[in-house]
This record gives sequence, structure tokens and C-alpha cells, in this order.
Amino acid sequence: MNIAILGFGTVGSGIYEILKNNKEAIAKRVGEEITVKYILDIRDFSSHEDAHLFTNDYNVILNDSSVDVVAEVIGGVEPSMTFTREALAAGKHVVTSNKELVATHGDELFKIANENGKAYLFEAAVGGGIPLIRPLYNCLAANNIKKIIGVLNGTTNYILTEMITKGRDFDSALKSAQENGYAERDPSADIEGKDTARKISILTSLLYGSRVDCRHIETEGITNITMEDVKYAEAAGCDIKLIGYGELENSKVFARVSPMFISKHSPISCAMGVYNAVLANGDSVGNVLFYGQGAGKLPTASAVLGDIIDIARHKNVSMSWNSENSDSYLSDEDVKTGAFVRIAESSDISFSEKYPSAISLEAHTSSEKAYIIPSMTESEFKKLSCIKKIRCENNFKPSIG
Amino acid sequence: MNIAILGFGTVGSGIYEILKNNKEAIAKRVGEEITVKYILDIRDFSSHEDAHLFTNDYNVILNDSSVDVVAEVIGGVEPSMTFTREALAAGKHVVTSNKELVATHGDELFKIANENGKAYLFEAAVGGGIPLIRPLYNCLAANNIKKIIGVLNGTTNYILTEMITKGRDFDSALKSAQENGYAERDPSADIEGKDTARKISILTSLLYGSRVDCRHIETEGITNITMEDVKYAEAAGCDIKLIGYGELENSKVFARVSPMFISKHSPISCAMGVYNAVLANGDSVGNVLFYGQGAGKLPTASAVLGDIIDIARHKNVSMSWNSENSDSYLSDEDVKTGAFVRIAESSDISFSEKYPSAISLEAHTSSEKAYIIPSMTESEFKKLSCIKKIRCENNFKPSIG
Repeated sequence: MNIAILGFGTVGSGIYEILKNNKEAIAKRVGEEITVKYILDIRDFSSHEDAHLFTNDYNVILNDSSVDVVAEVIGGVEPSMTFTREALAAGKHVVTSNKELVATHGDELFKIANENGKAYLFEAAVGGGIPLIRPLYNCLAANNIKKIIGVLNGTTNYILTEMITKGRDFDSALKSAQENGYAERDPSADIEGKDTARKISILTSLLYGSRVDCRHIETEGITNITMEDVKYAEAAGCDIKLIGYGELENSKVFARVSPMFISKHSPISCAMGVYNAVLANGDSVGNVLFYGQGAGKLPTASAVLGDIIDIARHKNVSMSWNSENSDSYLSDEDVKTGAFVRIAESSDISFSEKYPSAISLEAHTSSEKAYIIPSMTESEFKKLSCIKKIRCENNFKPSIG
Repeated sequence: MNIAILGFGTVGSGIYEILKNNKEAIAKRVGEEITVKYILDIRDFSSHEDAHLFTNDYNVILNDSSVDVVAEVIGGVEPSMTFTREALAAGKHVVTSNKELVATHGDELFKIANENGKAYLFEAAVGGGIPLIRPLYNCLAANNIKKIIGVLNGTTNYILTEMITKGRDFDSALKSAQENGYAERDPSADIEGKDTARKISILTSLLYGSRVDCRHIETEGITNITMEDVKYAEAAGCDIKLIGYGELENSKVFARVSPMFISKHSPISCAMGVYNAVLANGDSVGNVLFYGQGAGKLPTASAVLGDIIDIARHKNVSMSWNSENSDSYLSDEDVKTGAFVRIAESSDISFSEKYPSAISLEAHTSSEKAYIIPSMTESEFKKLSCIKKIRCENNFKPSIG
């Protein structure tokens, strides 16, 4: 089977490298060789050992009927969208790691793929190398997945882990992430939660069957998390993590991105540093966790190749969702959350009356009080007036020690 | 699509229940209804609300060409083997939760399935509801999986968790497992490691491509684990877990079942109580973990239904391995392991000379000494003469605190 790689960046060169190193083992498993016939990149690779594979003319690929699968690993919406549409129309399967494109135009592309009898697969778009899309869509298909809690962004998890384990403040931890290549020079898409929003959009869309638009996903990043918050979390037996959260109930869906207190006893707390983890709760299977490297050259390329191998083996693979169904969102009144709050000491009295179930944490300064409130509505949480508020799981009970 | 359930025990009734409760949701996802047409059981279910589905004559099912898939959830080798062979020969797909049959006769049944153009699928045979077989076989197919470490038996993990968290000795913990329905009256297959051996046999066979016979799997259970050992593990920053271990290297394979010291920092340590977890290390993806309920009515039925839904969606699904390739096993000289050892104080001098890298643990009695030796061969480990020895991961460094 012949493939073309669009974009010879991190992921594209990873695909090339794995196919080169594991060519025979993969051929043995699949029953045929997977061969890179073209690599599309506008840069000059004339001194590359496989220079003859490179082209900057996409039409060469489109017009070659021996190319069965196109791996779009350019990222961003354009030219990826046009390239993908053209490849599907030319009767080629497309696999991708492009979370932005899948989150924003997945439904259109699934439709075009379906009309052409081809696959548009995206295992690598969420959780990097972690098998996630296929297990959720296939293995757990007998379940109604009710809840999904994901650490989906390695950059922010690295920053938070540095703050938690090394006592570094946010700015210093971000700098360390940049120095180690875990954060971009402009880290805003990561630290403001946009990357996580795209990923939870994909997961909830897949489980819900209709597009969950990022514009409906309340998105808060980690830029306001301080060492004070990290210490309060520690005192409550928790770590702070940036969580992509999804809930499905009575044919309605809810998705949110925000920092959350996560108990150290939760299996999801095993995701430290750049690792990702996703916990799904199904009505039959209960809690299931998937954990691994959510980014990086070879892990992401491994997932793209998993899609390519699936096409080689099974031809008629598909996983998809429909266009958005606009009245299908749970309202802020229907969703419950736990809350950590820091309030000024003076505002204490009315607060305790309003939330008699609030659990007091030892305050770090004399001018404030800190509480965990096990459960309230999203709507109440948003209206809370306080120094700082961070969500916890609903019905959260801190292990104070 | 019509299915027949063979055996209306725990798993069989779970399949029936999920299909009843989630019928519409599943039909929406799959594109067609999945209908139970027969349930085979020799017991009397004449007062069951769906009594008309029950039969004790397997020929009725074999001769009904409208039955597409047979779910064999009887367990054991016979009559499951005969039933499976007959169903495949009659042109029906077979899905199963029967680890014993898959581990011992999987290769023959894959061959028969292949000859008849049908699937023989077994997602439920390892790790209960956890998506495991498909992610390893499909999503990670571009990887050479080098190592697999699995907590694969809920009964033994429950017993060890009771010992670790409640300080109960083995007998008392086993009794608690029996009282809570987590251990059978005759618990030998679980506590002696046979169940785990079948499961690691299936996982390594799948990854290796040839049958790894249980007879080649060194199998040690947990019956010799004492509270002393648990305390030493604690002091080394570890829990003791019964581990199904597999290693693949240079076209050779190794599998073993034994108790191991597992660091509390390892993601696999998140598996407590009846939960299972499997950590796989691939050459591209790095470490990936799968976690969830490894047994139980609905989780296991969820996995069986995942296989049925995959057949409904994709028709030509297959995953298999070949008959055993007898010279393909790594020898005990080629496999490395870490070791925890308790030795009599008198034997100390020669021991320290032989293992200068040994790390001393504080002894619990004056008559013995205890060490962690980071690395030795399997062969050396087996020859160690001491009061007690328990394996650790190779190159293990204890966090002594």
C-alpha cells in the first residue's frame, strides 16, 4: 500500500522514521508493505537520503492513483482542509493528527469521506500515541459513556507538575517547559486551554454523535493558578490539573475546560509531566483509564500509522459524527460541580450559611478562608464571588492530612 | 443482526441485560438492531420474561442461518471448543470471554474462522471490560511492543490490596474476597496464578504472532506472600502485585507470572482492589496504560458486545496468531529482573560480595537481612538461596523512606 505524507515536520518525519525502522515487522503484521511514495513539503529536502520522495506539487499526489492513503500532518485549517477535501474526492483515504481541523470541520470531512467511500481517521488528534478514539468508539460502543475526564495537554500538565513537585511558580515553570521544548514560544493555545478544548470537543462529538462546537465549550486555562492554590490542593489530598471535561445525559451534552482539583487517589492522577490520561465512565464498563504520551514525534506518528494499518487491514473503517444539533447542550443549571473557594475573611458569615456542607481548609493567610464545597451547579459556581475558585469533581470529599 | 448467547451465567445474562437497556442507543450507533434470537442453557428458564428465547438444543442455533454471531460465554474447554468449531463451520462469527479456550486452542480456532471467512474475537478474555486486545493489535500495530506488565487478576489484586491497606494476612484477606464474591470457593486458579498465565499467554501470543503456550510460562502465585513481605515492599516505596509479565526481543518471547514489587510511582500501581491494569512499552509510543474493571457481569459483557458491534460495523474483522513456534522462547539467561531478597544474617558476607549493587532495607527481625538487587538474570534469580525472594522490575531503584 502506498501512502503520501503531507508535511515533513515533527509528526511527518516520525511516520517516515517508524516505517523505515519497522518496515518488515509491520509488513508481516499487515500482510503487505506500507510504502511512502511521496512527501509533500515546500522546503528544500534535496540533500535528504530519500530526496526523490519529496515534492512541492500536491497535484502529483492527487493524480497518482497508486497512492491509497494521504497522511495530513500539516496542522491548522488551511491548506489542510483543501488538501483533505481534494484527497477524499480523488478517492484516497485520509488520516490525520490535526486536532484543529477535526474539531472545526470534522463533520464536513466525514461527509465527504462517506460520499467517496473512503475513511477520514484521526486517532492521533487526541492523546497523541494513546489508543483512545478507537477504544471509545468501538470497544466501548455497547456503553452509554456518561462522563469523560481528560488530562489532554502535555504542556500545561508539565507546568502544573513543575509547580506541584518543585514548588516553582507559574512563570518559572512555563520557562522550564519552553527550555525543554514542551512549550512553544507563544504558549497561549496551550496555557489558555484552547488545545484542550479542541480535544474534548473531538471526544464529546465522537461519543455524542453530533458536533460539539468549541464555541460552546467554556474554556479557562491555567494562567491564574498560583503556588497558593497548589498548596491548598495538596492540603486537600489533590493535584491541580487542566481538565477537559465532558458529560452526556438524556441526549444532551456538556463540555468544559478548566483547572480542577483531582484527588491523588484518582487513577487519572497518574498523569504527571507531559503524560496524558483520559478517564471514561460507561454505564456498563464503569471507569476505564487510558494513559500515555499525548504528544511527541514518535508517539503521535505511531497513532497515525495505527490508522493507516487499520485501513490496510480492513478497508471499510469509519468513525464519525454529524453536524451540530444546536439545542442539545446541557445548561449550567443541569451540571453539578464541586468547588474550591478562597474568600475574604469578612465575607465568611453569609457564605457558611449558604453552603452548610462546605469543608474548611486551613488558610494560608490570616485575611482569607478556604473551603471545599462538595456540590453546586455550574451556574452557582460561575456566580461565586470570591478571591479564587477552582472546580473539583462533583461530590468531592477532600482527604485532609 | 441476530445473535445467540451460549450460557446464561454471569456474562451471558450481562449481555442480555445491556442489549435490553441500551438497544436503541446501540442500534443508532451501529446502524442496525442487535437482537438476541436464542439463549442456550441446559437449566430451566421457563419462567423468564423472555422464556421463548431459551433452548437446550444447540442444533436449533446452528441450523438457523439468520443467526450471524454466536457469543460463547460458557467458559472452560468443552463443550465450548466443539460449539465454537461447529458455529464457525456453520458460517457464524464467534465472540468469547473464554480465556482458557483462547489460550489453549486459539490458534486452531483462528484457522477454522479464517477458512470459513468468519471472525473469532476475544476482547473480553483479558482485562474484562478494559479495551486491550484491539488497542494492542490495531492502534499500536506500528510498534514493536517490547514489554508488557499486567495486573490481570482481580481476585489476587483484591487480596493483596487488603493485605497492603488493611494489614490483613493472606488467609484473612482471601476469606474477605470470598465473602465479597471476588474469589471462588476453590480459589486455586486465581491465587496460584493460572488465570493470569492464561491472560499473559493471550497477550504475548497476540503481540508475538505465535502461540505462547502456558506450559512455557513460569507461574508463581501469591500464596506465599506474608505481611512481612508487604511491609518490606512498603519500606521500598512499593506495593506487591501479581504480575503477568511479557518481553519480546529479537523475534523471541518470554512470559512469566509472579508476585512483583511495583513502585507506587509506576502508573500500574493505580490498580487497587479488583481493578486491572496493563502497561505496554512500545518502541514508538513509549509507555501506554490501560486500566479498568477486569471482571464482573456488565464490564465483561460490555467487551463481548464491543466485539459483536465491531462485526456488525466492519464484517471482516480478524485478530489472530499462528501455532506455536517452539524455538522462539528467550532463555532465562537472556531475561533480566530486579530482586527483593530476605536472607539469614549468617549468609550475609558472600551475598554482599556477589551483589555489590545490592541496596539494604531495614530488617524486620534480628535474624535476617533484606536487600533489593537492581538487576540479575532470571537464571540467577531462580538459583538464589534465601528465606524469601520476590521479583522487582529490572534496574529497579527503591524509594526508601
